[in-house]
Amino acid sequence: MTSFSVVLVEPKYEGNVGSVARVMKNFGFSELVLVKPCELGKDAKKMASHAQDILSNAKILENFDDLLDSYDFLVATSAIVATDKNSLRTPIMPENLKNSLKIDGKVALLFGREDYGLFNEEIKECDLLVTIPTSKEYPTMNIAISVAVILYEISKLEKEMKGSMNKFEKANVIEKKILLEKFSDLVNVVYDNETQRNITKKTFRTLLGRAFISGREAASLTGVFRKAKELKN
Amino acid sequence: MTSFSVVLVEPKYEGNVGSVARVMKNFGFSELVLVKPCELGKDAKKMASHAQDILSNAKILENFDDLLDSYDFLVATSAIVATDKNSLRTPIMPENLKNSLKIDGKVALLFGREDYGLFNEEIKECDLLVTIPTSKEYPTMNIAISVAVILYEISKLEKEMKGSMNKFEKANVIEKKILLEKFSDLVNVVYDNETQRNITKKTFRTLLGRAFISGREAASLTGVFRKAKELKN
Repeated sequence: MTSFSVVLVEPKYEGNVGSVARVMKNFGFSELVLVKPCELGKDAKKMASHAQDILSNAKILENFDDLLDSYDFLVATSAIVATDKNSLRTPIMPENLKNSLKIDGKVALLFGREDYGLFNEEIKECDLLVTIPTSKEYPTMNIAISVAVILYEISKLEKEMKGSMNKFEKANVIEKKILLEKFSDLVNVVYDNETQRNITKKTFRTLLGRAFISGREAASLTGVFRKAKELKN
Repeated sequence: MTSFSVVLVEPKYEGNVGSVARVMKNFGFSELVLVKPCELGKDAKKMASHAQDILSNAKILENFDDLLDSYDFLVATSAIVATDKNSLRTPIMPENLKNSLKIDGKVALLFGREDYGLFNEEIKECDLLVTIPTSKEYPTMNIAISVAVILYEISKLEKEMKGSMNKFEKANVIEKKILLEKFSDLVNVVYDNETQRNITKKTFRTLLGRAFISGREAASLTGVFRKAKELKN
Protein backbone atom coordinates (compact mmCIF):
# COMPACT_ATOMS: atom_id res chain seq x y z
CA MET A 1 0.00 0.00 0.00
CA THR A 2 1.16 3.48 -0.82
CA SER A 3 0.09 6.29 1.49
CA PHE A 4 0.57 9.93 0.54
CA SER A 5 1.12 12.94 2.78
CA VAL A 6 1.14 16.54 1.58
CA VAL A 7 4.00 18.43 3.23
CA LEU A 8 4.15 22.23 3.15
CA VAL A 9 7.60 23.53 4.02
CA GLU A 10 7.47 26.89 5.80
CA PRO A 11 4.18 28.14 4.36
CA LYS A 12 3.97 31.93 4.88
CA TYR A 13 0.25 32.63 4.36
CA GLU A 14 -2.34 30.85 6.44
CA GLY A 15 -4.96 31.26 3.69
CA ASN A 16 -2.84 29.06 1.44
CA VAL A 17 -2.66 26.35 4.09
CA GLY A 18 -6.47 26.39 4.26
CA SER A 19 -6.78 26.24 0.46
CA VAL A 20 -4.42 23.27 0.35
CA ALA A 21 -6.52 21.45 2.98
CA ARG A 22 -9.63 22.00 0.83
CA VAL A 23 -7.89 20.74 -2.33
CA MET A 24 -6.73 17.64 -0.46
CA LYS A 25 -10.26 16.82 0.62
CA ASN A 26 -11.52 17.42 -2.94
CA PHE A 27 -9.16 14.76 -4.24
CA GLY A 28 -9.56 12.36 -1.33
CA PHE A 29 -6.28 12.90 0.53
CA SER A 30 -6.14 13.56 4.28
CA GLU A 31 -2.62 13.69 5.76
CA LEU A 32 -1.27 17.22 5.94
CA VAL A 33 2.16 17.96 7.43
CA LEU A 34 3.44 21.49 8.07
CA VAL A 35 7.12 22.22 8.60
CA LYS A 36 7.65 25.47 10.57
CA PRO A 37 4.35 26.98 9.39
CA CYS A 38 3.03 30.51 9.89
CA GLU A 39 0.39 30.92 12.57
CA LEU A 40 -2.95 29.40 11.60
CA GLY A 41 -6.05 31.42 12.40
CA LYS A 42 -9.28 32.67 10.89
CA ASP A 43 -8.08 32.90 7.28
CA ALA A 44 -6.83 29.31 7.23
CA LYS A 45 -10.18 28.08 8.55
CA LYS A 46 -12.12 30.18 6.07
CA MET A 47 -10.19 28.93 3.05
CA ALA A 48 -10.32 25.31 4.24
CA SER A 49 -14.11 25.49 3.95
CA HIS A 50 -15.42 21.95 4.56
CA ALA A 51 -11.94 20.54 5.17
CA GLN A 52 -11.63 21.69 8.78
CA ASP A 53 -10.76 18.14 9.85
CA ILE A 54 -7.67 18.06 7.65
CA LEU A 55 -6.56 21.44 8.94
CA SER A 56 -7.01 20.62 12.63
CA ASN A 57 -5.35 17.20 12.27
CA ALA A 58 -2.32 18.66 10.48
CA LYS A 59 0.98 17.47 11.93
CA ILE A 60 3.44 20.24 12.79
CA LEU A 61 7.19 19.60 12.49
CA GLU A 62 9.88 21.96 13.71
CA ASN A 63 12.67 20.61 11.52
CA PHE A 64 12.86 19.60 7.89
CA ASP A 65 15.10 16.68 8.83
CA ASP A 66 12.30 15.12 10.89
CA LEU A 67 10.75 14.17 7.54
CA LEU A 68 13.68 11.95 6.63
CA ASP A 69 12.93 9.37 9.30
CA SER A 70 9.17 9.47 8.90
CA TYR A 71 8.88 8.65 5.19
CA ASP A 72 10.04 5.94 2.83
CA PHE A 73 10.09 8.20 -0.22
CA LEU A 74 10.29 11.98 -0.56
CA VAL A 75 9.02 13.75 -3.67
CA ALA A 76 10.14 17.38 -4.15
CA THR A 77 8.02 19.66 -6.35
CA SER A 78 9.13 22.69 -8.30
CA ALA A 79 7.35 24.94 -10.79
CA ILE A 80 10.60 26.41 -11.99
CA VAL A 81 12.21 24.86 -15.02
CA ALA A 82 15.80 25.24 -16.21
CA THR A 83 17.37 26.94 -13.24
CA ASP A 84 20.24 25.63 -11.17
CA LYS A 85 17.63 24.06 -8.90
CA ASN A 86 16.87 21.42 -11.46
CA SER A 87 20.46 20.72 -12.33
CA LEU A 88 20.42 18.78 -9.06
CA ARG A 89 18.54 16.04 -10.79
CA THR A 90 16.39 15.36 -13.84
CA PRO A 91 12.84 16.42 -13.01
CA ILE A 92 9.94 14.23 -14.06
CA MET A 93 6.49 15.36 -15.20
CA PRO A 94 3.47 14.79 -12.92
CA GLU A 95 2.08 12.02 -15.13
CA ASN A 96 5.28 10.06 -14.54
CA LEU A 97 4.54 9.85 -10.83
CA LYS A 98 2.92 6.55 -11.75
CA ASN A 99 5.90 4.61 -10.49
CA SER A 100 5.75 6.26 -7.08
CA LEU A 101 2.41 4.50 -6.63
CA LYS A 102 4.27 1.22 -6.68
CA ILE A 103 6.10 2.11 -3.49
CA ASP A 104 4.96 -0.04 -0.62
CA GLY A 105 5.25 2.61 2.07
CA LYS A 106 4.83 6.24 3.04
CA VAL A 107 5.35 8.86 0.36
CA ALA A 108 5.69 12.57 1.19
CA LEU A 109 4.86 15.17 -1.46
CA LEU A 110 6.85 18.30 -0.59
CA PHE A 111 5.79 21.82 -1.56
CA GLY A 112 8.07 24.78 -0.79
CA ARG A 113 7.70 28.35 0.40
CA GLU A 114 5.37 30.63 -1.57
CA ASP A 115 8.23 32.95 -2.52
CA TYR A 116 11.20 30.67 -2.90
CA GLY A 117 10.01 27.09 -3.14
CA LEU A 118 12.26 24.40 -1.67
CA PHE A 119 15.90 25.11 -0.93
CA ASN A 120 18.55 23.21 -2.85
CA GLU A 121 19.63 21.42 0.32
CA GLU A 122 16.05 20.23 0.81
CA ILE A 123 15.68 19.02 -2.79
CA LYS A 124 18.94 17.11 -2.37
CA GLU A 125 17.39 15.09 0.45
CA CYS A 126 14.50 13.99 -1.76
CA ASP A 127 14.30 10.87 -3.87
CA LEU A 128 12.58 12.53 -6.81
CA LEU A 129 11.87 15.97 -8.26
CA VAL A 130 8.63 16.61 -10.10
CA THR A 131 7.98 19.74 -12.16
CA ILE A 132 4.62 21.05 -13.29
CA PRO A 133 5.02 22.36 -16.84
CA THR A 134 4.01 26.02 -16.91
CA SER A 135 4.42 29.04 -19.13
CA LYS A 136 7.95 30.44 -19.11
CA GLU A 137 6.42 33.89 -19.00
CA TYR A 138 4.82 33.32 -15.59
CA PRO A 139 5.70 30.01 -13.96
CA THR A 140 4.94 30.92 -10.34
CA MET A 141 1.73 29.17 -9.34
CA ASN A 142 -0.24 29.59 -6.17
CA ILE A 143 0.71 26.70 -3.89
CA ALA A 144 -2.85 25.31 -3.76
CA ILE A 145 -2.84 25.12 -7.57
CA SER A 146 0.41 23.13 -7.55
CA VAL A 147 -0.98 20.77 -4.92
CA ALA A 148 -4.19 20.35 -6.95
CA VAL A 149 -2.38 19.40 -10.15
CA ILE A 150 -0.18 16.84 -8.38
CA LEU A 151 -3.07 15.29 -6.41
CA TYR A 152 -5.26 15.26 -9.52
CA GLU A 153 -2.59 13.30 -11.41
CA ILE A 154 -2.01 10.89 -8.52
CA SER A 155 -5.71 10.18 -8.02
CA LYS A 156 -6.03 9.64 -11.79
CA LEU A 157 -3.06 7.29 -11.84
CA GLU A 158 -4.38 5.42 -8.80
CA LYS A 159 -7.61 4.72 -10.63
CA GLU A 160 -5.73 3.58 -13.73
CA MET A 161 -3.55 1.26 -11.73
CA LYS A 162 -6.21 -0.35 -9.59
CA GLY A 163 -6.29 -3.95 -10.58
CA SER A 164 -3.44 -3.62 -13.07
CA MET A 165 -0.75 -3.84 -10.42
CA ASN A 166 0.72 -7.07 -9.18
CA LYS A 167 2.93 -7.87 -6.23
CA PHE A 168 5.95 -8.53 -8.37
CA GLU A 169 6.03 -4.91 -9.53
CA LYS A 170 5.97 -3.45 -6.05
CA ALA A 171 9.20 -1.96 -4.85
CA ASN A 172 10.24 -3.26 -1.47
CA VAL A 173 11.30 -0.46 0.85
CA ILE A 174 13.39 -2.72 3.07
CA GLU A 175 15.24 -4.22 0.13
CA LYS A 176 15.94 -0.72 -1.14
CA LYS A 177 17.33 0.31 2.23
CA ILE A 178 19.60 -2.73 2.29
CA LEU A 179 20.76 -1.92 -1.21
CA LEU A 180 21.63 1.66 -0.22
CA GLU A 181 23.49 0.38 2.87
CA LYS A 182 25.48 -2.14 0.86
CA PHE A 183 26.32 0.50 -1.71
CA SER A 184 27.41 2.87 1.07
CA ASP A 185 29.61 0.18 2.59
CA LEU A 186 31.24 -0.36 -0.77
CA VAL A 187 31.78 3.37 -1.35
CA ASN A 188 33.35 3.73 2.08
CA VAL A 189 35.80 1.01 1.17
CA VAL A 190 36.58 2.48 -2.23
CA TYR A 191 37.02 6.15 -1.27
CA ASP A 192 38.78 7.80 1.63
CA ASN A 193 37.56 11.32 0.89
CA GLU A 194 34.34 12.09 2.77
CA THR A 195 33.03 14.60 0.18
CA GLN A 196 33.53 12.15 -2.66
CA ARG A 197 31.82 9.45 -0.63
CA ASN A 198 28.79 11.65 -0.05
CA ILE A 199 28.49 12.78 -3.66
CA THR A 200 28.68 9.20 -4.89
CA LYS A 201 26.06 7.96 -2.44
CA LYS A 202 23.73 10.84 -3.27
CA THR A 203 24.06 10.14 -6.99
CA PHE A 204 23.12 6.51 -6.53
CA ARG A 205 20.20 7.39 -4.27
CA THR A 206 18.92 9.87 -6.86
CA LEU A 207 19.22 7.31 -9.60
CA LEU A 208 17.25 4.78 -7.56
CA GLY A 209 14.57 7.40 -6.96
CA ARG A 210 14.09 7.94 -10.66
CA ALA A 211 14.43 4.31 -11.67
CA PHE A 212 11.88 2.88 -9.20
CA ILE A 213 13.87 -0.28 -8.79
CA SER A 214 12.00 -3.52 -8.23
CA GLY A 215 12.67 -5.85 -5.32
CA ARG A 216 14.30 -8.41 -7.56
CA GLU A 217 16.61 -5.83 -9.13
CA ALA A 218 17.48 -4.43 -5.72
CA ALA A 219 18.40 -7.89 -4.44
CA SER A 220 20.54 -8.49 -7.49
CA LEU A 221 22.51 -5.24 -7.08
CA THR A 222 22.84 -5.76 -3.33
CA GLY A 223 24.59 -9.03 -4.03
CA VAL A 224 27.03 -7.37 -6.43
CA PHE A 225 27.93 -4.63 -3.95
CA ARG A 226 28.36 -7.04 -1.06
CA LYS A 227 30.66 -9.21 -3.11
CA ALA A 228 32.56 -6.19 -4.44
CA LYS A 229 33.23 -4.99 -0.93
CA GLU A 230 34.57 -8.40 0.07
CA LEU A 231 37.22 -8.09 -2.66
CA LYS A 232 39.07 -5.74 -0.32
CA ASN A 233 39.83 -8.42 2.27
CA MET B 1 -5.87 26.15 -35.23
CA THR B 2 -7.77 25.73 -32.00
CA SER B 3 -8.07 28.74 -29.73
CA PHE B 4 -9.34 28.46 -26.16
CA SER B 5 -11.20 31.00 -24.06
CA VAL B 6 -11.98 30.60 -20.38
CA VAL B 7 -15.55 31.71 -19.69
CA LEU B 8 -16.74 32.37 -16.13
CA VAL B 9 -20.51 32.45 -15.90
CA GLU B 10 -21.72 34.86 -13.20
CA PRO B 11 -18.69 34.70 -10.91
CA LYS B 12 -19.67 36.01 -7.48
CA TYR B 13 -16.29 36.70 -5.85
CA GLU B 14 -13.82 39.04 -7.50
CA GLY B 15 -10.88 37.30 -5.80
CA ASN B 16 -11.75 34.12 -7.72
CA VAL B 17 -11.74 36.01 -11.03
CA GLY B 18 -8.24 37.26 -10.19
CA SER B 19 -7.07 33.76 -9.23
CA VAL B 20 -8.41 32.39 -12.51
CA ALA B 21 -6.51 35.08 -14.46
CA ARG B 22 -3.30 34.04 -12.69
CA VAL B 23 -3.87 30.34 -13.40
CA MET B 24 -4.49 31.14 -17.07
CA LYS B 25 -1.19 32.98 -17.35
CA ASN B 26 0.60 30.13 -15.54
CA PHE B 27 -0.56 27.71 -18.21
CA GLY B 28 -0.15 30.07 -21.19
CA PHE B 29 -3.79 30.98 -21.87
CA SER B 30 -4.94 34.58 -22.30
CA GLU B 31 -8.58 34.99 -23.34
CA LEU B 32 -10.88 35.49 -20.38
CA VAL B 33 -14.62 36.07 -20.84
CA LEU B 34 -16.95 37.02 -17.99
CA VAL B 35 -20.72 36.63 -18.24
CA LYS B 36 -22.53 38.99 -15.86
CA PRO B 37 -19.62 39.12 -13.38
CA CYS B 38 -19.50 40.70 -9.92
CA GLU B 39 -17.74 44.03 -9.69
CA LEU B 40 -13.97 43.74 -10.12
CA GLY B 41 -11.82 45.80 -7.77
CA LYS B 42 -8.82 45.55 -5.47
CA ASP B 43 -9.22 41.86 -4.54
CA ALA B 44 -9.36 40.73 -8.17
CA LYS B 45 -6.17 42.67 -8.93
CA LYS B 46 -4.42 41.31 -5.86
CA MET B 47 -5.22 37.67 -6.67
CA ALA B 48 -4.33 38.10 -10.36
CA SER B 49 -0.77 38.96 -9.25
CA HIS B 50 1.32 39.17 -12.46
CA ALA B 51 -1.69 38.46 -14.73
CA GLN B 52 -3.09 42.00 -14.68
CA ASP B 53 -3.13 42.05 -18.49
CA ILE B 54 -5.51 39.09 -18.65
CA LEU B 55 -7.78 40.68 -16.07
CA SER B 56 -7.95 44.09 -17.74
CA ASN B 57 -8.46 42.58 -21.20
CA ALA B 58 -11.30 40.34 -20.01
CA LYS B 59 -14.35 40.51 -22.25
CA ILE B 60 -17.62 41.18 -20.41
CA LEU B 61 -20.87 39.71 -21.74
CA GLU B 62 -24.32 40.61 -20.48
CA ASN B 63 -26.06 37.48 -21.77
CA PHE B 64 -25.16 33.82 -21.78
CA ASP B 65 -26.62 33.50 -25.26
CA ASP B 66 -24.02 35.89 -26.67
CA LEU B 67 -21.59 32.99 -26.32
CA LEU B 68 -23.50 30.86 -28.79
CA ASP B 69 -22.65 33.06 -31.77
CA SER B 70 -19.07 33.77 -30.73
CA TYR B 71 -17.77 30.22 -30.44
CA ASP B 72 -17.56 27.12 -32.60
CA PHE B 73 -17.58 24.71 -29.70
CA LEU B 74 -18.75 25.08 -26.10
CA VAL B 75 -17.40 22.87 -23.32
CA ALA B 76 -19.34 22.85 -20.04
CA THR B 77 -17.55 21.86 -16.84
CA SER B 78 -18.99 20.29 -13.73
CA ALA B 79 -17.44 18.94 -10.56
CA ILE B 80 -20.59 17.17 -9.57
CA VAL B 81 -20.99 13.55 -10.56
CA ALA B 82 -24.17 11.54 -10.66
CA THR B 83 -26.79 14.23 -10.21
CA ASP B 84 -29.53 15.06 -12.62
CA LYS B 85 -27.19 17.62 -14.16
CA ASN B 86 -25.17 14.93 -15.78
CA SER B 87 -28.08 12.94 -17.02
CA LEU B 88 -28.27 15.63 -19.69
CA ARG B 89 -25.35 14.00 -21.38
CA THR B 90 -22.50 11.61 -20.74
CA PRO B 91 -19.66 13.57 -19.17
CA ILE B 92 -16.10 12.99 -20.30
CA MET B 93 -12.94 13.10 -18.18
CA PRO B 94 -10.48 15.99 -18.66
CA GLU B 95 -7.91 13.76 -20.37
CA ASN B 96 -10.47 13.01 -23.07
CA LEU B 97 -10.55 16.66 -24.09
CA LYS B 98 -7.90 15.59 -26.58
CA ASN B 99 -10.41 15.53 -29.39
CA SER B 100 -11.50 19.10 -28.74
CA LEU B 101 -7.98 20.13 -29.77
CA LYS B 102 -8.77 18.89 -33.24
CA ILE B 103 -11.40 21.56 -33.67
CA ASP B 104 -10.34 24.16 -36.19
CA GLY B 105 -11.96 27.12 -34.48
CA LYS B 106 -12.83 28.85 -31.24
CA VAL B 107 -13.47 26.71 -28.18
CA ALA B 108 -15.02 28.14 -25.00
CA LEU B 109 -14.39 26.41 -21.66
CA LEU B 110 -17.32 27.29 -19.39
CA PHE B 111 -17.12 27.41 -15.59
CA GLY B 112 -20.25 28.08 -13.56
CA ARG B 113 -21.17 30.01 -10.45
CA GLU B 114 -19.21 29.29 -7.25
CA ASP B 115 -22.33 28.06 -5.45
CA TYR B 116 -24.38 26.42 -8.16
CA GLY B 117 -22.19 25.79 -11.19
CA LEU B 118 -23.85 25.97 -14.59
CA PHE B 119 -27.62 25.78 -14.91
CA ASN B 120 -29.12 22.84 -16.77
CA GLU B 121 -30.32 25.16 -19.54
CA GLU B 122 -26.76 26.38 -20.01
CA ILE B 123 -25.29 22.88 -20.09
CA LYS B 124 -27.90 21.98 -22.72
CA GLU B 125 -26.48 24.64 -25.03
CA CYS B 126 -22.99 23.16 -24.84
CA ASP B 127 -21.44 20.60 -27.15
CA LEU B 128 -19.68 18.67 -24.42
CA LEU B 129 -19.67 18.21 -20.66
CA VAL B 130 -16.43 17.53 -18.83
CA THR B 131 -16.24 16.42 -15.21
CA ILE B 132 -13.22 16.58 -12.94
CA PRO B 133 -13.19 13.40 -10.85
CA THR B 134 -13.24 14.36 -7.17
CA SER B 135 -13.99 12.79 -3.83
CA LYS B 136 -17.68 12.09 -3.30
CA GLU B 137 -17.25 13.32 0.26
CA TYR B 138 -16.36 16.85 -0.83
CA PRO B 139 -16.61 17.45 -4.59
CA THR B 140 -16.94 21.25 -4.56
CA MET B 141 -13.68 22.74 -5.73
CA ASN B 142 -12.64 26.36 -5.74
CA ILE B 143 -13.22 27.65 -9.28
CA ALA B 144 -9.53 28.50 -9.84
CA ILE B 145 -8.66 24.89 -9.00
CA SER B 146 -11.14 23.58 -11.60
CA VAL B 147 -9.76 25.96 -14.21
CA ALA B 148 -6.20 24.90 -13.35
CA VAL B 149 -6.93 21.17 -13.76
CA ILE B 150 -8.64 21.70 -17.14
CA LEU B 151 -5.93 24.04 -18.49
CA TYR B 152 -3.20 21.75 -17.19
CA GLU B 153 -4.74 18.83 -19.12
CA ILE B 154 -5.22 20.89 -22.27
CA SER B 155 -1.67 22.24 -22.27
CA LYS B 156 -0.39 18.70 -21.70
CA LEU B 157 -2.50 17.34 -24.55
CA GLU B 158 -1.40 20.20 -26.82
CA LYS B 159 2.21 19.24 -26.27
CA GLU B 160 1.45 15.58 -26.93
CA MET B 161 -0.38 16.36 -30.14
CA LYS B 162 2.10 18.82 -31.60
CA GLY B 163 3.42 17.20 -34.70
CA SER B 164 1.23 14.14 -34.35
CA MET B 165 -1.82 15.80 -35.87
CA ASN B 166 -2.50 15.99 -39.58
CA LYS B 167 -5.00 17.98 -41.56
CA PHE B 168 -7.13 14.96 -42.29
CA GLU B 169 -7.99 14.57 -38.63
CA LYS B 170 -9.12 18.13 -38.13
CA ALA B 171 -12.83 18.65 -37.89
CA ASN B 172 -14.11 21.32 -40.21
CA VAL B 173 -16.37 23.75 -38.42
CA ILE B 174 -18.14 24.90 -41.57
CA GLU B 175 -18.84 21.35 -42.66
CA LYS B 176 -20.21 20.63 -39.20
CA LYS B 177 -22.49 23.66 -39.43
CA ILE B 178 -23.78 22.55 -42.82
CA LEU B 179 -24.38 19.08 -41.42
CA LEU B 180 -26.42 20.50 -38.53
CA GLU B 181 -28.41 22.67 -40.95
CA LYS B 182 -29.17 19.77 -43.25
CA PHE B 183 -30.20 17.64 -40.32
CA SER B 184 -32.46 20.46 -39.07
CA ASP B 185 -34.04 20.80 -42.50
CA LEU B 186 -34.76 17.09 -42.52
CA VAL B 187 -36.19 17.12 -38.99
CA ASN B 188 -38.45 20.04 -39.92
CA VAL B 189 -39.79 18.01 -42.81
CA VAL B 190 -40.24 14.89 -40.73
CA TYR B 191 -41.91 16.38 -37.63
CA ASP B 192 -44.62 18.99 -37.23
CA ASN B 193 -44.35 19.27 -33.46
CA GLU B 194 -41.92 22.06 -32.46
CA THR B 195 -40.90 20.43 -29.15
CA GLN B 196 -40.11 17.15 -30.82
CA ARG B 197 -38.12 18.98 -33.49
CA ASN B 198 -36.03 20.74 -30.85
CA ILE B 199 -35.35 17.61 -28.80
CA THR B 200 -34.27 15.72 -31.89
CA LYS B 201 -31.93 18.49 -33.05
CA LYS B 202 -30.40 18.86 -29.60
CA THR B 203 -29.79 15.12 -29.37
CA PHE B 204 -27.97 15.09 -32.68
CA ARG B 205 -25.90 18.14 -31.76
CA THR B 206 -24.89 16.54 -28.47
CA LEU B 207 -23.92 13.35 -30.22
CA LEU B 208 -21.75 15.29 -32.67
CA GLY B 209 -20.10 17.08 -29.77
CA ARG B 210 -19.07 13.82 -28.18
CA ALA B 211 -18.17 12.06 -31.40
CA PHE B 212 -15.85 14.78 -32.79
CA ILE B 213 -16.88 14.04 -36.32
CA SER B 214 -14.30 14.42 -39.07
CA GLY B 215 -14.84 16.53 -42.18
CA ARG B 216 -15.17 13.46 -44.34
CA GLU B 217 -17.77 11.90 -42.06
CA ALA B 218 -19.67 15.17 -41.86
CA ALA B 219 -19.79 15.46 -45.65
CA SER B 220 -21.02 11.91 -45.90
CA LEU B 221 -23.90 12.43 -43.43
CA THR B 222 -24.79 15.79 -44.97
CA GLY B 223 -25.36 14.02 -48.27
CA VAL B 224 -27.63 11.46 -46.63
CA PHE B 225 -29.76 14.10 -44.92
CA ARG B 226 -30.03 16.25 -48.05
CA LYS B 227 -31.17 13.27 -50.06
CA ALA B 228 -33.57 12.11 -47.34
CA LYS B 229 -35.22 15.50 -47.25
CA GLU B 230 -35.68 15.42 -51.01
CA LEU B 231 -37.71 12.21 -50.63
CA LYS B 232 -40.58 14.39 -49.47
CA ASN B 233 -41.03 16.10 -52.86
